[in-house]
Amino acid sequence: MSLLYPVILCGGGGTRLWPKSRPHNPKPFQKLTGERSLFEQTLSRVRGGEFATPVIIAGKAHADLIMQQAGREGIGQVIVEPAAKNTAPAIALAAARLDPQSIMLVCPSDHHIADVEAFRIAIGNAVSLAEAGWLVTMGINPTAPETGFGYIERGDELGNGAYEVKRFVEKPDASRAKSFLSRGTFNWNSGIFVFRAGDFLRELKTHRSQMAEAVEASVEQGSSTSTCFHPNPDTFASIAGESIDYAVMENAKKVAVVPVSMGWSDIGNWQALQDAQSKDETGNATSGPSDLVDCENVFTMSDGPRVSAIGLQDVVIVVDGNEVLVISAAHAQKVGQLKGAKGR
Amino acid sequence: MSLLYPVILCGGGGTRLWPKSRPHNPKPFQKLTGERSLFEQTLSRVRGGEFATPVIIAGKAHADLIMQQAGREGIGQVIVEPAAKNTAPAIALAAARLDPQSIMLVCPSDHHIADVEAFRIAIGNAVSLAEAGWLVTMGINPTAPETGFGYIERGDELGNGAYEVKRFVEKPDASRAKSFLSRGTFNWNSGIFVFRAGDFLRELKTHRSQMAEAVEASVEQGSSTSTCFHPNPDTFASIAGESIDYAVMENAKKVAVVPVSMGWSDIGNWQALQDAQSKDETGNATSGPSDLVDCENVFTMSDGPRVSAIGLQDVVIVVDGNEVLVISAAHAQKVGQLKGAKGR
Repeated sequence: MSLLYPVILCGGGGTRLWPKSRPHNPKPFQKLTGERSLFEQTLSRVRGGEFATPVIIAGKAHADLIMQQAGREGIGQVIVEPAAKNTAPAIALAAARLDPQSIMLVCPSDHHIADVEAFRIAIGNAVSLAEAGWLVTMGINPTAPETGFGYIERGDELGNGAYEVKRFVEKPDASRAKSFLSRGTFNWNSGIFVFRAGDFLRELKTHRSQMAEAVEASVEQGSSTSTCFHPNPDTFASIAGESIDYAVMENAKKVAVVPVSMGWSDIGNWQALQDAQSKDETGNATSGPSDLVDCENVFTMSDGPRVSAIGLQDVVIVVDGNEVLVISAAHAQKVGQLKGAKGR
Repeated sequence: MSLLYPVILCGGGGTRLWPKSRPHNPKPFQKLTGERSLFEQTLSRVRGGEFATPVIIAGKAHADLIMQQAGREGIGQVIVEPAAKNTAPAIALAAARLDPQSIMLVCPSDHHIADVEAFRIAIGNAVSLAEAGWLVTMGINPTAPETGFGYIERGDELGNGAYEVKRFVEKPDASRAKSFLSRGTFNWNSGIFVFRAGDFLRELKTHRSQMAEAVEASVEQGSSTSTCFHPNPDTFASIAGESIDYAVMENAKKVAVVPVSMGWSDIGNWQALQDAQSKDETGNATSGPSDLVDCENVFTMSDGPRVSAIGLQDVVIVVDGNEVLVISAAHAQKVGQLKGAKGR
């Protein structure tokens, strides 16, 4: 098996895990599902024999956090995005600095994967496809009719546990999501990709030539420090931000999906984080000091103060610095509407 | 009308308003229903022409708090209870230091009374009875089948809005409470009393002679500082603690009740405090920074951190120092079960 180049995207912040996730210390760098941050867990999943030194892509504000959490030894130069332009340009920056034959494993830095062994097996299958020139996306076997994810419909089987992608489907409404789940030929779009750097850049040039040229120029005119690579901000600024799905995956020809069940969650909101916790016999989960009486399916997370609760069901309680959040788990999608989440 | 001697009982602490009420700073001294503490509100209700300087009875731990909140001018010596022995001995201490003809107005320090004018009118009626040798208890006209209060059944009308007490009834179960409410001849026992000091002590001697003697000895052998009176602790220690209801009111002969509607609450738990708040159109009430989205009948009280809540109904959220309390309002009676409320 070829050496695999992990490319870890640290660009996203998001407001739906406020107040734990905040602009200066966003979700990837928080200890949400154990003793290590999601970023640290992501790094540890891509260490070992077949993995090259990971490439990290992040905004300027978070370069220090990355150095602290990764340690100086474990990562190469951090590629510092001059501006947030979504995933397609970010991944292209990494691709442009690798040999075209290098196989990239693109991973968001803020996902939770419970079954790392299943992840590695699926990645192995994807690499076989990538070596044959396919752009591969990892497809999560759905466990519920989620309306918060994009879906991928599988087409013909390609061997090695992979399928040709028939089509990408945007976030569906509830009835379509149910239909996708029952038909059994759909996967959630995980945002984890495997492909050769050269194949990706060729497809980007074909479908988004301006973006490809601007990225190439930014890299050529970029500058290095001992720890960071800075693409040229002026050429990068001209790029129209776009996701890899829109810019490349939905347009490219040889696109494959490897379905996998690996206890995956994008920890997209507090309810998703609650789901990812290990719970006691009444469904409660706690992090930090707590005292729960007559509670069911309550999740508490505190950075210090004790959380005492009585008679609650399906509630999430978060204490972080000078903010206290209490929500019905079913309303987790609305956290972004709060004043605090908007920085007010 | 005779001069009326307010006797304000600050002995109680209680755990049901934890974490706001704590041993070093209990409920009477907290600002729970406005800009002033319940104790300060109690004091202000008994100031004016017909009221003598109030007598305060409190534990040693709270003498300083009382001085701070009352100011040196406004109160006489504080009677410091050598030990907590419930209300009968505490009231007897005050009675023993007054002229037997003095009419006492005994008030708990931790009640909320919205309609002070109604309170004063009812007290005026009670004084007329007390001048005729009755022991008078203020009876709250019930507004719900509460199971958390003792009840008083009214007997014959005595004039001046007063009735002879037919009987005292312990906290009833739900069906008895409903029956009391529908029969319309019952009042809640408020713990507010009006009587002559001499009449009270005579009845105490008749029904609890040992207690009466021990209190008398404690007062005779007590000592004074400029701000406090300290009953003799050794003689006081021998007393078996008992409430005024058990020791005197249920046994005495001339016991009257003055029914009153005055927006009264004993603020006995967080739900009672929530009920006493002024609310917005969705039933929410807040004290301290807050941001409520899709909430109904939510009550927040914070001493600093912002409380953000989404999608909750009938929930009380309290932030105080290093403690965060989140309860379903219907479970307010259980707060005493929490570790924090038990001092652990």
